[in-house]
Amino acid sequence: MSNPIQKWHDVVKLRDYNTLTEIIHDDAIFYSPVVYTPQKGKDITLKYLIAASEVFNSSSFKYDKEMIGENSASLEFSLTIDDTDINGIDLITWNNDGLITEFKVFIRPLQGVNLIHKMMQGMLESFKNVS
Amino acid sequence: MSNPIQKWHDVVKLRDYNTLTEIIHDDAIFYSPVVYTPQKGKDITLKYLIAASEVFNSSSFKYDKEMIGENSASLEFSLTIDDTDINGIDLITWNNDGLITEFKVFIRPLQGVNLIHKMMQGMLESFKNVS
Repeated sequence: MSNPIQKWHDVVKLRDYNTLTEIIHDDAIFYSPVVYTPQKGKDITLKYLIAASEVFNSSSFKYDKEMIGENSASLEFSLTIDDTDINGIDLITWNNDGLITEFKVFIRPLQGVNLIHKMMQGMLESFKNVS
Repeated sequence: MSNPIQKWHDVVKLRDYNTLTEIIHDDAIFYSPVVYTPQKGKDITLKYLIAASEVFNSSSFKYDKEMIGENSASLEFSLTIDDTDINGIDLITWNNDGLITEFKVFIRPLQGVNLIHKMMQGMLESFKNVS
Protein backbone atom coordinates (compact mmCIF):
# COMPACT_ATOMS: atom_id res chain seq x y z
CA MET A 1 0.00 0.00 0.00
CA SER A 2 1.32 3.39 -1.02
CA ASN A 3 1.77 5.82 1.88
CA PRO A 4 1.44 9.58 1.22
CA ILE A 5 3.20 10.75 4.40
CA GLN A 6 6.62 11.45 2.83
CA LYS A 7 4.89 13.45 0.08
CA TRP A 8 2.88 15.32 2.73
CA HIS A 9 6.15 16.28 4.45
CA ASP A 10 7.44 17.61 1.12
CA VAL A 11 4.24 19.64 0.69
CA VAL A 12 4.72 21.21 4.13
CA LYS A 13 8.45 21.82 3.73
CA LEU A 14 8.32 23.24 0.19
CA ARG A 15 4.73 24.53 0.23
CA ASP A 16 4.41 22.46 -2.94
CA TYR A 17 0.69 22.66 -3.66
CA ASN A 18 0.96 20.79 -6.97
CA THR A 19 2.10 17.70 -5.08
CA LEU A 20 -0.67 18.36 -2.54
CA THR A 21 -3.27 18.25 -5.33
CA GLU A 22 -1.90 14.87 -6.46
CA ILE A 23 -2.26 13.18 -3.06
CA ILE A 24 -5.80 14.34 -2.13
CA HIS A 25 -8.73 12.06 -3.03
CA ASP A 26 -11.69 13.59 -4.93
CA ASP A 27 -14.00 12.76 -2.00
CA ALA A 28 -11.56 13.82 0.75
CA ILE A 29 -13.00 15.24 3.97
CA PHE A 30 -11.29 17.90 6.10
CA TYR A 31 -12.08 18.08 9.84
CA SER A 32 -11.19 21.41 11.43
CA PRO A 33 -9.94 21.78 15.01
CA VAL A 34 -12.57 24.51 15.50
CA VAL A 35 -15.79 23.45 13.77
CA TYR A 36 -17.45 20.03 13.97
CA THR A 37 -19.06 20.01 10.51
CA PRO A 38 -16.90 18.01 8.08
CA GLN A 39 -15.69 19.94 5.02
CA LYS A 40 -16.43 17.57 2.13
CA GLY A 41 -14.69 17.29 -1.22
CA LYS A 42 -11.26 17.85 -2.75
CA ASP A 43 -11.69 21.57 -3.48
CA ILE A 44 -12.59 22.63 0.03
CA THR A 45 -10.06 20.20 1.57
CA LEU A 46 -7.32 21.76 -0.58
CA LYS A 47 -8.46 25.26 0.39
CA TYR A 48 -8.25 24.46 4.12
CA LEU A 49 -4.93 22.62 3.83
CA ILE A 50 -3.33 25.43 1.83
CA ALA A 51 -4.67 28.05 4.27
CA ALA A 52 -3.34 25.95 7.17
CA SER A 53 0.04 25.56 5.48
CA GLU A 54 0.30 29.33 5.08
CA VAL A 55 -0.83 30.03 8.66
CA PHE A 56 1.49 27.37 10.12
CA ASN A 57 4.41 28.42 7.94
CA SER A 58 6.81 29.47 10.65
CA SER A 59 10.45 28.78 11.35
CA SER A 60 9.38 27.27 14.64
CA PHE A 61 7.00 24.68 13.06
CA LYS A 62 8.19 21.12 13.46
CA TYR A 63 6.75 17.62 13.50
CA ASP A 64 7.45 15.67 16.70
CA LYS A 65 6.06 12.19 17.40
CA GLU A 66 4.92 10.28 14.32
CA MET A 67 2.96 7.06 14.38
CA ILE A 68 2.20 5.42 11.07
CA GLY A 69 -0.38 2.65 10.77
CA GLU A 70 -1.56 0.60 7.79
CA ASN A 71 -3.72 3.33 6.25
CA SER A 72 -3.52 6.19 8.73
CA ALA A 73 -0.92 8.27 10.52
CA SER A 74 -0.81 10.50 13.58
CA LEU A 75 1.70 13.35 13.23
CA GLU A 76 2.23 15.54 16.29
CA PHE A 77 3.46 19.07 15.63
CA SER A 78 4.46 22.14 17.59
CA LEU A 79 5.07 25.79 16.83
CA THR A 80 5.03 29.21 18.45
CA ILE A 81 3.09 32.18 17.08
CA ASP A 82 3.32 35.57 18.81
CA ASP A 83 4.57 33.94 22.05
CA THR A 84 1.69 31.43 22.02
CA ASP A 85 2.94 27.84 22.16
CA ILE A 86 0.77 25.59 20.00
CA ASN A 87 0.74 21.80 19.93
CA GLY A 88 -1.35 19.68 17.60
CA ILE A 89 -1.89 16.47 15.70
CA ASP A 90 -2.59 15.83 12.03
CA LEU A 91 -4.58 12.58 11.81
CA ILE A 92 -4.36 11.51 8.17
CA THR A 93 -6.15 8.57 6.51
CA TRP A 94 -5.53 7.27 2.98
CA ASN A 95 -6.93 4.64 0.64
CA ASN A 96 -5.25 1.71 -1.15
CA ASP A 97 -3.98 4.05 -3.87
CA GLY A 98 -2.23 6.23 -1.29
CA LEU A 99 -4.70 9.08 -1.75
CA ILE A 100 -5.66 11.04 1.37
CA THR A 101 -9.36 10.51 2.15
CA GLU A 102 -9.54 12.18 5.59
CA PHE A 103 -7.51 14.94 7.21
CA LYS A 104 -8.28 15.84 10.83
CA VAL A 105 -6.51 18.54 12.81
CA PHE A 106 -6.45 18.67 16.63
CA ILE A 107 -4.94 21.63 18.52
CA ARG A 108 -4.14 22.34 22.15
CA PRO A 109 -4.20 24.37 24.33
CA LEU A 110 -7.43 26.41 24.14
CA GLN A 111 -5.47 29.64 23.54
CA GLY A 112 -3.83 27.95 20.53
CA VAL A 113 -7.20 26.85 19.09
CA ASN A 114 -8.50 30.42 19.37
CA LEU A 115 -5.39 31.94 17.74
CA ILE A 116 -5.39 29.45 14.84
CA HIS A 117 -9.14 30.01 14.39
CA LYS A 118 -8.59 33.76 13.99
CA MET A 119 -5.63 33.33 11.64
CA MET A 120 -7.41 30.71 9.49
CA GLN A 121 -10.43 33.00 9.10
CA GLY A 122 -8.15 35.81 7.92
CA MET A 123 -6.30 33.52 5.47
CA LEU A 124 -9.51 32.03 3.98
CA GLU A 125 -10.90 35.58 3.64
CA SER A 126 -7.77 36.65 1.73
CA PHE A 127 -8.28 33.73 -0.72
CA LYS A 128 -11.77 35.06 -1.52
CA ASN A 129 -10.33 38.45 -2.37
CA VAL A 130 -7.84 36.86 -4.78
CA SER A 131 -10.26 34.61 -6.65
CA MET B 1 9.29 -3.53 25.58
CA SER B 2 6.16 -3.70 27.70
CA ASN B 3 3.22 -1.73 26.31
CA PRO B 4 0.64 -0.29 28.74
CA ILE B 5 -2.13 0.32 26.17
CA GLN B 6 -4.15 -2.84 26.89
CA LYS B 7 -4.02 -1.99 30.60
CA TRP B 8 -5.08 1.57 29.81
CA HIS B 9 -8.12 0.22 27.96
CA ASP B 10 -9.00 -1.88 31.05
CA VAL B 11 -8.69 1.24 33.22
CA VAL B 12 -11.10 3.13 30.97
CA LYS B 13 -13.56 0.25 30.59
CA LEU B 14 -13.65 -0.79 34.27
CA ARG B 15 -12.68 2.56 35.83
CA ASP B 16 -10.02 0.49 37.57
CA TYR B 17 -7.91 3.15 39.26
CA ASN B 18 -5.68 0.63 41.06
CA THR B 19 -4.42 -0.59 37.70
CA LEU B 20 -4.06 3.06 36.64
CA THR B 21 -1.79 3.73 39.62
CA GLU B 22 0.40 0.78 38.59
CA ILE B 23 1.01 2.02 35.03
CA ILE B 24 1.83 5.69 35.74
CA HIS B 25 5.49 6.66 36.20
CA ASP B 26 6.45 8.69 39.31
CA ASP B 27 7.61 11.57 37.08
CA ALA B 28 4.70 11.38 34.64
CA ILE B 29 3.52 14.60 33.00
CA PHE B 30 -0.10 15.33 32.02
CA TYR B 31 -0.80 17.81 29.20
CA SER B 32 -4.34 19.18 29.20
CA PRO B 33 -6.29 20.07 26.05
CA VAL B 34 -7.09 23.44 27.65
CA VAL B 35 -4.01 24.72 29.46
CA TYR B 36 -0.45 24.78 28.10
CA THR B 37 1.41 24.37 31.42
CA PRO B 38 2.41 20.72 31.92
CA GLN B 39 1.04 19.08 35.09
CA LYS B 40 4.09 17.35 36.57
CA GLY B 41 4.24 14.27 38.77
CA LYS B 42 2.31 11.06 39.40
CA ASP B 43 -0.19 12.53 41.90
CA ILE B 44 -1.46 15.34 39.70
CA THR B 45 -1.38 13.12 36.58
CA LEU B 46 -3.57 10.56 38.39
CA LYS B 47 -5.93 13.29 39.55
CA TYR B 48 -6.42 14.59 36.00
CA LEU B 49 -6.75 11.12 34.46
CA ILE B 50 -9.32 10.02 37.05
CA ALA B 51 -11.28 13.27 36.61
CA ALA B 52 -11.14 12.78 32.82
CA SER B 53 -12.29 9.14 33.14
CA GLU B 54 -15.27 10.27 35.22
CA VAL B 55 -16.15 13.13 32.85
CA PHE B 56 -15.76 10.96 29.73
CA ASN B 57 -17.63 8.04 31.30
CA SER B 58 -20.52 7.86 28.89
CA SER B 59 -22.19 5.08 27.00
CA SER B 60 -21.27 6.87 23.79
CA PHE B 61 -17.51 6.96 24.52
CA LYS B 62 -15.46 4.82 22.18
CA TYR B 63 -11.93 4.58 20.86
CA ASP B 64 -11.67 4.78 17.06
CA LYS B 65 -8.34 4.83 15.18
CA GLU B 66 -5.39 3.52 17.16
CA MET B 67 -1.78 3.80 16.12
CA ILE B 68 0.82 2.18 18.31
CA GLY B 69 4.53 2.95 17.92
CA GLU B 70 7.58 1.66 19.76
CA ASN B 71 7.07 3.68 22.93
CA SER B 72 4.05 5.84 22.17
CA ALA B 73 0.49 5.48 20.96
CA SER B 74 -2.14 7.75 19.43
CA LEU B 75 -5.69 6.75 20.40
CA GLU B 76 -8.53 8.64 18.74
CA PHE B 77 -11.80 8.75 20.65
CA SER B 78 -15.30 10.11 20.19
CA LEU B 79 -18.30 10.72 22.41
CA THR B 80 -21.41 12.87 22.68
CA ILE B 81 -22.29 14.92 25.78
CA ASP B 82 -25.54 16.90 25.89
CA ASP B 83 -25.83 16.82 22.06
CA THR B 84 -22.25 18.07 21.66
CA ASP B 85 -20.15 15.73 19.50
CA ILE B 86 -16.61 15.52 20.81
CA ASN B 87 -13.60 14.02 19.07
CA GLY B 88 -10.14 13.71 20.58
CA ILE B 89 -6.79 11.97 20.78
CA ASP B 90 -4.92 10.51 23.74
CA LEU B 91 -1.20 10.68 22.91
CA ILE B 92 0.49 8.34 25.38
CA THR B 93 4.25 7.80 25.86
CA TRP B 94 5.87 5.11 28.03
CA ASN B 95 9.34 4.05 29.11
CA ASN B 96 11.17 0.72 28.78
CA ASP B 97 9.36 -0.64 31.82
CA GLY B 98 5.96 0.08 30.22
CA LEU B 99 5.24 2.93 32.63
CA ILE B 100 3.41 5.94 31.21
CA THR B 101 5.67 9.01 31.30
CA GLU B 102 3.55 11.44 29.26
CA PHE B 103 -0.19 11.72 28.67
CA LYS B 104 -1.43 14.41 26.28
CA VAL B 105 -5.07 15.03 25.43
CA PHE B 106 -6.23 16.86 22.28
CA ILE B 107 -9.90 17.74 21.69
CA ARG B 108 -11.90 19.13 18.80
CA PRO B 109 -14.02 21.02 17.95
CA LEU B 110 -13.79 24.28 19.95
CA GLN B 111 -17.26 23.72 21.46
CA GLY B 112 -16.04 20.33 22.73
CA VAL B 113 -12.91 21.86 24.31
CA ASN B 114 -15.06 24.41 26.14
CA LEU B 115 -17.55 21.79 27.38
CA ILE B 116 -14.81 19.41 28.62
CA HIS B 117 -13.04 22.37 30.27
CA LYS B 118 -16.18 23.24 32.26
CA MET B 119 -16.87 19.62 33.22
CA MET B 120 -13.24 18.95 34.24
CA GLN B 121 -13.26 22.04 36.47
CA GLY B 122 -16.41 20.80 38.19
CA MET B 123 -14.99 17.29 38.65
CA LEU B 124 -11.63 18.52 40.04
CA GLU B 125 -13.54 20.85 42.39
CA SER B 126 -15.63 17.91 43.66
CA PHE B 127 -12.37 15.99 44.46
CA LYS B 128 -11.27 18.90 46.68
CA ASN B 129 -14.51 18.72 48.63
CA VAL B 130 -14.01 14.99 49.26
CA SER B 131 -10.38 15.12 50.44
